[in-house]
Amino acid sequence: MDRKKSNRIVILGGGFAGIYTAMHLEKLLRRRDDFEILLVNKENYFVFQPMLAEVVSGSIGILDTVSPIRRMLRKTDLHVREIESIDTHAQTVTTTPGFSHQPNVIQYDHLVLALGNVTDFRGLRGLPEHAIPFKNLSDALYIRNHVIHALEEAAIEHRNAQLRRELLTFVVAGGGFSGVEVVAELNDFVREVIKNYPQIDPDEVRVVLLHALDRILPELDEKLAFYAQKILARRGVDVRLNTKLEAATAAEAILADGQRIPTRTLISTVPSFPNPLIDRLALSKERGRLKVASSLLVEGTNNVWALGDCALVPMKDGGLCPPTAQFAIRQAKTAAANIVASIRGGESKLFHFKELGKLGALGHRSAVAQVFGINVSGFLAWFMWRTIYLMKLPGWGRRLKVAASWTLDLVLPPELVQLQINNSQSVVHEHFEPGQEVFREGDIGDRLYIITSGKAEVTRKNGDGAIPLAQLGAGEYFGEMALLNHTTRNATVRCVESLDVLSIPKREFSALAATLPTMRENLEKVMAQRRNTVMN
Amino acid sequence: MDRKKSNRIVILGGGFAGIYTAMHLEKLLRRRDDFEILLVNKENYFVFQPMLAEVVSGSIGILDTVSPIRRMLRKTDLHVREIESIDTHAQTVTTTPGFSHQPNVIQYDHLVLALGNVTDFRGLRGLPEHAIPFKNLSDALYIRNHVIHALEEAAIEHRNAQLRRELLTFVVAGGGFSGVEVVAELNDFVREVIKNYPQIDPDEVRVVLLHALDRILPELDEKLAFYAQKILARRGVDVRLNTKLEAATAAEAILADGQRIPTRTLISTVPSFPNPLIDRLALSKERGRLKVASSLLVEGTNNVWALGDCALVPMKDGGLCPPTAQFAIRQAKTAAANIVASIRGGESKLFHFKELGKLGALGHRSAVAQVFGINVSGFLAWFMWRTIYLMKLPGWGRRLKVAASWTLDLVLPPELVQLQINNSQSVVHEHFEPGQEVFREGDIGDRLYIITSGKAEVTRKNGDGAIPLAQLGAGEYFGEMALLNHTTRNATVRCVESLDVLSIPKREFSALAATLPTMRENLEKVMAQRRNTVMN
Repeated sequence: MDRKKSNRIVILGGGFAGIYTAMHLEKLLRRRDDFEILLVNKENYFVFQPMLAEVVSGSIGILDTVSPIRRMLRKTDLHVREIESIDTHAQTVTTTPGFSHQPNVIQYDHLVLALGNVTDFRGLRGLPEHAIPFKNLSDALYIRNHVIHALEEAAIEHRNAQLRRELLTFVVAGGGFSGVEVVAELNDFVREVIKNYPQIDPDEVRVVLLHALDRILPELDEKLAFYAQKILARRGVDVRLNTKLEAATAAEAILADGQRIPTRTLISTVPSFPNPLIDRLALSKERGRLKVASSLLVEGTNNVWALGDCALVPMKDGGLCPPTAQFAIRQAKTAAANIVASIRGGESKLFHFKELGKLGALGHRSAVAQVFGINVSGFLAWFMWRTIYLMKLPGWGRRLKVAASWTLDLVLPPELVQLQINNSQSVVHEHFEPGQEVFREGDIGDRLYIITSGKAEVTRKNGDGAIPLAQLGAGEYFGEMALLNHTTRNATVRCVESLDVLSIPKREFSALAATLPTMRENLEKVMAQRRNTVMN
Repeated sequence: MDRKKSNRIVILGGGFAGIYTAMHLEKLLRRRDDFEILLVNKENYFVFQPMLAEVVSGSIGILDTVSPIRRMLRKTDLHVREIESIDTHAQTVTTTPGFSHQPNVIQYDHLVLALGNVTDFRGLRGLPEHAIPFKNLSDALYIRNHVIHALEEAAIEHRNAQLRRELLTFVVAGGGFSGVEVVAELNDFVREVIKNYPQIDPDEVRVVLLHALDRILPELDEKLAFYAQKILARRGVDVRLNTKLEAATAAEAILADGQRIPTRTLISTVPSFPNPLIDRLALSKERGRLKVASSLLVEGTNNVWALGDCALVPMKDGGLCPPTAQFAIRQAKTAAANIVASIRGGESKLFHFKELGKLGALGHRSAVAQVFGINVSGFLAWFMWRTIYLMKLPGWGRRLKVAASWTLDLVLPPELVQLQINNSQSVVHEHFEPGQEVFREGDIGDRLYIITSGKAEVTRKNGDGAIPLAQLGAGEYFGEMALLNHTTRNATVRCVESLDVLSIPKREFSALAATLPTMRENLEKVMAQRRNTVMN
């Protein structure tokens, strides 16, 4: 464990709430306060969320929307690690081990919980396996590269109509600010770059926005939301209201009413939950968020503070703060002042802030805004959006870079480079729905599948029909024959009951099969049994 | 299989040789030639190699050094896939399957082999597992992110002197153009950003260049090479001549003389081999490269052409072309002309080109150059380097972006963002050398290890000494106890004989263990046996 000074303030989370708390603490504390600020974040950068959607379309550079935390916080000790657990009795935070395989236990005097919320697909069939969240920089980049990959494959597979439809349909679930911004940028991007794919008819592209309620952008005035919806529709986005996403497979988005949209690109900004670390804390909560006083001290504690999206902060005039950056930034100022007061002795301040306005970008020179109660839309709102956010971006270097990117974006076509960082295939979890094929007789065999739950049936072609060969359930595996014999698939495997599998690529399977003798033996036994079944 | 026009030219490889051949073909061929050009490359972009090292230091943007192939070649059909095999009898090329799991077989009339060469670590102990190549954009990005990761970890682990030394030592093997450029940029980058890590003393940073011969840059005049070496040394690079890298582990570079350099970052630009696809072709070769006539037609064929680094192209005045971009670009022009001549009928041109000069960047406003036989070095050479390569960059959009990046780089500090694209831990191969610990008693247990070759011993602490518990060999596994019982490691495992393992992360192991009943049973048997051994 680390030796520490007498006042160590440990901040968990590097979003608006955490970063601005550290920033204010750095300003307020003096050397004689004998303090130490330590911030734990899983990345070494701060993401300026409002511009994240522009990374998808490439109208700003990949790194323009993020700032290195070390440059923003010169007096704060940064630990770039995942947080494993928080112990409010022992006053410690444990992070994941690094290269040393030793736990990293950090003792604190004051703890600031600024862990935000997470998109959590647990409990939704197939979403953890196949839906892409949109939260951080790696999500934005993943989406961008995945979309380009889909276009490249559609250009090659131009004779497979079904696959082509899946590849050229892009679905975004969730019509809040973040879903609307990402669908707008994605739509602009695809419809522009499609011109470079002569094999693809631009009319084949479908971009769909799913929203569970009867209007998008619940954060805004109804009139603005309606305007935004019209703009999206005019640009070719199929906005589907009162439509809930229920499940997903690698090739489909499945709606609550049973409808299925064939797609290989499903992005979901919902549902949003507080960070699981908050869940595990024995502190008072409501709907998963921490209950705090107006001083931002967590109820029932005297050295644990919470703010931002993981806290329920009461407003002066009743009600609760909305989970937005504006509020997080102001809460950070109050939290920092109160932590300093509790170190030095002094009165604590109560949080109070009146919202200035709301802004949402709609891509291609359009936006909606609500400022001091006035509605603005179209080009003017877009211009306001760009000006305000450029000024809010931390650091003049970053502002310069974004301004340069925006200028070049006016004259240059959008970036079309697919940035493959990791080509290696790995062990993945996959979900299938009844009727769906896992693989088909004659396919190339590149993976072994282990069923973790559900049922599958194995069939083989026979003239125009098919003979059933076997039914498989949890704990059984299939697909090993093509791998061991280096042939194509000699049967078709189809999902019978909602199927979850662990799929292992050929290379890893070979290493496992070669070195685990009992596994190998067992595999051979099963192969022999199956051969007999077929012969008889 | 694809239906095709009567003259389909299939180009394999998207480097200088392949791209420029397609470009010239697009210019030369007319509609009446009834032709089709198809290019297969594993990425959808062309990498402008000379600027790749600048991605490491971030003095140009991540995508500035690559160009989307679709924008460069408007009349060429691009297949973004890996090539699986080439059949010169059937005149087909097979690529990896895409989403459809169906083989993609492309028939050709003319085949252009422009597959370049690859950095191939096979046969070198531990290099395939632990050395980082420097060939393409993902390598450059990986190096950049890995270096930042090492700095972040060194800042946290400031009490573990041994680990700190490993994390702060950066080793590059190979003193040719590419090795020198990458070591220069890496050194500039680390020494600049280290200022943002107050926990790290800048003097702890070590950057080492290993070169097997007695002078670096064999491509250049001895005087220039010596100048480059002096510049590197002055900037703090430890240049080690007559030093060969022999093996590697995750924590060490092992030299031919047995010396070991503790390091967590080992980049190697050597050894270089022709693409393995060329290996498998039954065409005439010498030292792995294809023998071609001056027309660039491969010996013994009438429709297979080869150029660039995978071909041995004779020069008019005797000797062979060096494997450089300059030659590849000129060869492409000859190849395209001769393919057109063979389609239309006509005489074939013979390749002839006299080299203009050579340029090598040394980072921070310094370079070495040899132009029309004259040696230039220092700032002037650097200025020439930037001007010439900026002009050679394909497309004015790209030039504009690079010029903007270079301008901003003069006033802004280097980018410090660590771009983690893929956080998921996966099944990996690891190599250990005798004496090295795989893990230590008390460590956190996060992986299971399966021995593919070599020997390991298991020991447990007993007072000041250690009791040996077991010796393990190929096919055996260890590390399962901490995973199954959720405890820390209860023994130390050390390599006895050069050890190769497959290591499986906790999450994948749990899924495997839970679903493969025999594996589970077997695991439990082994656990019981081991417990008995310990008890007795």
